Amino acid sequence: MTGAGTNHSLSPLTGGPKIILVEPQMGENIGMAARAMANFGLSGMRIVNPRDGWPNERAVVTAANAAHVLEKAEVFPDLLSAVADLNAVYATTARERGQMKRVLDADEAVTQVVSRMHGGEEVGILFGRERTGLDNDEVALADAIITFPVDPANASLNLAQAVLLVGYEWFKKAHGQLPFNLEERSPPAKREAIVSFFGWLETELDACGFFPAPEKKPAMIRNLRDILLRLSMTEQDVKTLRGAAGALRRGPIPPAKRDEPLTDGE
Amino acid sequence: MTGAGTNHSLSPLTGGPKIILVEPQMGENIGMAARAMANFGLSGMRIVNPRDGWPNERAVVTAANAAHVLEKAEVFPDLLSAVADLNAVYATTARERGQMKRVLDADEAVTQVVSRMHGGEEVGILFGRERTGLDNDEVALADAIITFPVDPANASLNLAQAVLLVGYEWFKKAHGQLPFNLEERSPPAKREAIVSFFGWLETELDACGFFPAPEKKPAMIRNLRDILLRLSMTEQDVKTLRGAAGALRRGPIPPAKRDEPLTDGE
Repeated sequence: MTGAGTNHSLSPLTGGPKIILVEPQMGENIGMAARAMANFGLSGMRIVNPRDGWPNERAVVTAANAAHVLEKAEVFPDLLSAVADLNAVYATTARERGQMKRVLDADEAVTQVVSRMHGGEEVGILFGRERTGLDNDEVALADAIITFPVDPANASLNLAQAVLLVGYEWFKKAHGQLPFNLEERSPPAKREAIVSFFGWLETELDACGFFPAPEKKPAMIRNLRDILLRLSMTEQDVKTLRGAAGALRRGPIPPAKRDEPLTDGE
Repeated sequence: MTGAGTNHSLSPLTGGPKIILVEPQMGENIGMAARAMANFGLSGMRIVNPRDGWPNERAVVTAANAAHVLEKAEVFPDLLSAVADLNAVYATTARERGQMKRVLDADEAVTQVVSRMHGGEEVGILFGRERTGLDNDEVALADAIITFPVDPANASLNLAQAVLLVGYEWFKKAHGQLPFNLEERSPPAKREAIVSFFGWLETELDACGFFPAPEKKPAMIRNLRDILLRLSMTEQDVKTLRGAAGALRRGPIPPAKRDEPLTDGE
């Protein structure tokens, strides 16, 4: 789905909680995390003591269209300075810690984040090193733990995937709208048009010997109507179906006549 | 977070809707999609006409711990045969289609999938080629469209990310539980213990001249209690706080006395 659907004339969304990468190792992962943030309208990246220094060429290449996130990333020498100005901090972790902290799923956590930010608080979410995650002292700095509902037999998510899931929940709650919505549909058909279509169809079917015996006709008609009503037809749907049924009713047209306008046969 | 939290002695979860990759190009992406499936307990992968044939060495290397998903993957020459035995089909797409189909977010779609599968239906979810997605005829085979709420300025998700988000919603609805839960906490403190702690603390504070004037004392006490009550203290919390406050109250201990047992000073 790469690139598909992106509208390059729009400015990216900004805001959201700070996404704090603690001692990330691979530039590619920083770049993928930036992309995940950009997908979901998060613009505040903080990086604590990145292993390979900063700026990081691999991160820029990987980030592609999310370069704006990296350009504004703030780099800190240690975690304490990266969270100093924040009011609330959450730590993502894949495994249990011996700490008396609330454990939230991303859904609950982001609901809290949205509400805190509404109240004017600045919030940060910590993501640990690729191989070893956050250490216990780092987790201890957080107000609560975020973990993800996963199959315990396959619990490992990479850094960018964890950022992606938090971003996804953030966007759902903070912005909500899908990039496009219900397809352009013609207006829903009025009941009158539907009943008229049914009447025409049933008359034609009767003429064609569809109903094997008069006493079976009412139940067969009800059944047919039930099926068609499940379509929640638009005006256009009714026209399309009536046209198709009319064409079947007329049967094959000899090749010579194909240029003549079709009439409904009524 | 790689590897962290995974319990290798557990058998992976199985089941869920079929994840149908339509003409995937890169083996790495098939492998990452398999990993995302395994994270969220999805085991049924179908692959339609993979560009580089099957099996694919790069897919196996990338899948790592999700090799079981690839081993059981079913390969089909075309999409029609891949959906022939299914009752319901959803198509993921990042952009609007000129088709009169319902557009669902992953959340709504997976709610439907869970309910259909409960009713005995077999369900498949289509994911398009990396660069170009699904073509219109492929989308036309589906009952509804799934798209993701993303910033329209950065709408591109890669194949494995799209599978990850669908898998995440699936796991939340079909299995739900977090890999670990509320930390082991001592029981919540009884109100009696809390009030007793407050009484002791306020007496000590009074003795230490914390309250500047008698008429200000009641409001200052209410304020202090409000703060402490927000902690929702456990029995252990009360002991810890009382111990800490007691230690402060006693003041520094000369080095020679440090080995003597501490008493509460009451």
